[in-house]
Amino acid sequence: MAAEMAEQPEVLARLAARAAADAAAVRTVVPHPLAGTVFLARGSSDNAAVFGRYLAELWAGRPAGLAAPSLYTRYHADVDWYGYLMIALSQSGATPEIISTCQAVRGAGATVIGITNEPGSALAGAVDLLLTTDAGAERAVPATKTVTAQLAVLVTMAAALGTGPAPGDTLAGLPAAVAATLDDPGPARELARRWHGIDRLVVAGRGLGYAAALETALKVAETTGILAEGMSAADLYHGPIAAVYAGAPVLLVNGGGPADADLAGLRLLLDSRHAETAALPVPAGLAEPAQVITAVVRGQQLASALALARGADPDAPAHLTKVTETT
Amino acid sequence: MAAEMAEQPEVLARLAARAAADAAAVRTVVPHPLAGTVFLARGSSDNAAVFGRYLAELWAGRPAGLAAPSLYTRYHADVDWYGYLMIALSQSGATPEIISTCQAVRGAGATVIGITNEPGSALAGAVDLLLTTDAGAERAVPATKTVTAQLAVLVTMAAALGTGPAPGDTLAGLPAAVAATLDDPGPARELARRWHGIDRLVVAGRGLGYAAALETALKVAETTGILAEGMSAADLYHGPIAAVYAGAPVLLVNGGGPADADLAGLRLLLDSRHAETAALPVPAGLAEPAQVITAVVRGQQLASALALARGADPDAPAHLTKVTETT
Repeated sequence: MAAEMAEQPEVLARLAARAAADAAAVRTVVPHPLAGTVFLARGSSDNAAVFGRYLAELWAGRPAGLAAPSLYTRYHADVDWYGYLMIALSQSGATPEIISTCQAVRGAGATVIGITNEPGSALAGAVDLLLTTDAGAERAVPATKTVTAQLAVLVTMAAALGTGPAPGDTLAGLPAAVAATLDDPGPARELARRWHGIDRLVVAGRGLGYAAALETALKVAETTGILAEGMSAADLYHGPIAAVYAGAPVLLVNGGGPADADLAGLRLLLDSRHAETAALPVPAGLAEPAQVITAVVRGQQLASALALARGADPDAPAHLTKVTETT
Repeated sequence: MAAEMAEQPEVLARLAARAAADAAAVRTVVPHPLAGTVFLARGSSDNAAVFGRYLAELWAGRPAGLAAPSLYTRYHADVDWYGYLMIALSQSGATPEIISTCQAVRGAGATVIGITNEPGSALAGAVDLLLTTDAGAERAVPATKTVTAQLAVLVTMAAALGTGPAPGDTLAGLPAAVAATLDDPGPARELARRWHGIDRLVVAGRGLGYAAALETALKVAETTGILAEGMSAADLYHGPIAAVYAGAPVLLVNGGGPADADLAGLRLLLDSRHAETAALPVPAGLAEPAQVITAVVRGQQLASALALARGADPDAPAHLTKVTETT
């Protein structure tokens, strides 16, 4: 996991250099007019999908959403997908329900773009356009470099849909910012020392940073067995905040955008209740999508440090395999 | 909470009787052609929205999804909503971000239907059609009768969008089934005795039952402070299952539909790892949407029984208020 985390600046630089060509390829397949964009994924890829969903709605200017695969694999829903763009994300390109859902919606009129780290996988045969994350083989069970690579490709993809900034501009400072983050493992290690004994964790974000909160929670759960729940700061107020009592650990993930004020307000409230709040530093001065990607790297550092602090092996978590065969 | 739970058969009978008229009203406002349906809500209403999202895609035959309010309240996204139907759910009709998001998407071309228990609320002024849940005043902080009422109205609404069964047929047996469930509090009490000391809980469902899993988890979190996370059985395999070790409590929620086989498979796996799995009985012979509503009632019973077993007051949980003013 540490070795693959360290490769991220190089992978991201490769994708930033490829951004203009990827955007051009996306533009050749997007339906006109676009009815909507829907993201299809599981696990870490599904957290990347949340990021893509926000960016696509913002930049394409048409509604976006997340797919419910069971409607196709279990209910065999008869749905007209004409005019829709589906973005299917799978590191392995081999999860059966992802492939079969792509086939169903494509057969029903959708244009499907696949994003995978395995261009020779089954996903290639089920889509109109395949974009690779080109991150090199990922061996550790917790996905790291393939996730930040998916996020970078999603910046490019969403920008190509409409009025977003040129993806090269958004991604330009990212490799250096991720390298600087990786060179600064201290804050995550210190937090892991403070929290090494916890059994449950809430990770809150809002806006684009919500995706980083979800991914941080998943990474912590995978590497440590802590029940870590990622949630929107706004959702937290609507009930789950009852589960944040004095001493309960809450990690706040800032995305660097207009929703960070909500996290500041939440922190004041949680501190007044003596919850154990914390936040990890992220570099300033980046475009919001790039800052969110560095926040994901901070989450990887925390997950890895927590696992080590608990005497676990972050590369081979209990009960997990690299390719998950859900149907 | 107990008194309001007990009113559910009467509320549901009222809504079943009104179903044909509600469906006719929905049909008068639905856009043709329909580009897609998007649900907007927070908290328990958002769990009802997940149920509506599945039913709408199944029955309307066009993609459905869930809104991201921060895109409108924080990012001021410029999105073309022409051709879309938005369904906004709010018990109080007073959550500021729900009202302002309705106004934004309606101004951008969407048709908006509101579902609320307060027909005199601000929501009424922000929608094209208002359907009331007509459940009477709800005083307990954990929403119960207004949630099952929302679910029943969503059955009607989704059926009106397309090819679903007549809502009266789906809802016909429901009031009696909910009454029978309420008359049988034993299984939830027994499980609450077994689990009274837990600090974390996973609640898993799939397909339509996923919404009942989410709502059960939220109800338990609200009334007890247990960190209860609802998740899709398929998502659970993609990482979070690492947090389900020997002795970890997992509640499985069957929806009565084609995804229940996934829960049976999950249970075998979790039992082999000595997790503390449990399921609560639901009546057989109902249409799947009606069975899911009875599963929500089982979740209410568990939440209430767990609170009482822990010496807490389920009507007035710590740190919660009835109307949540997120923006």
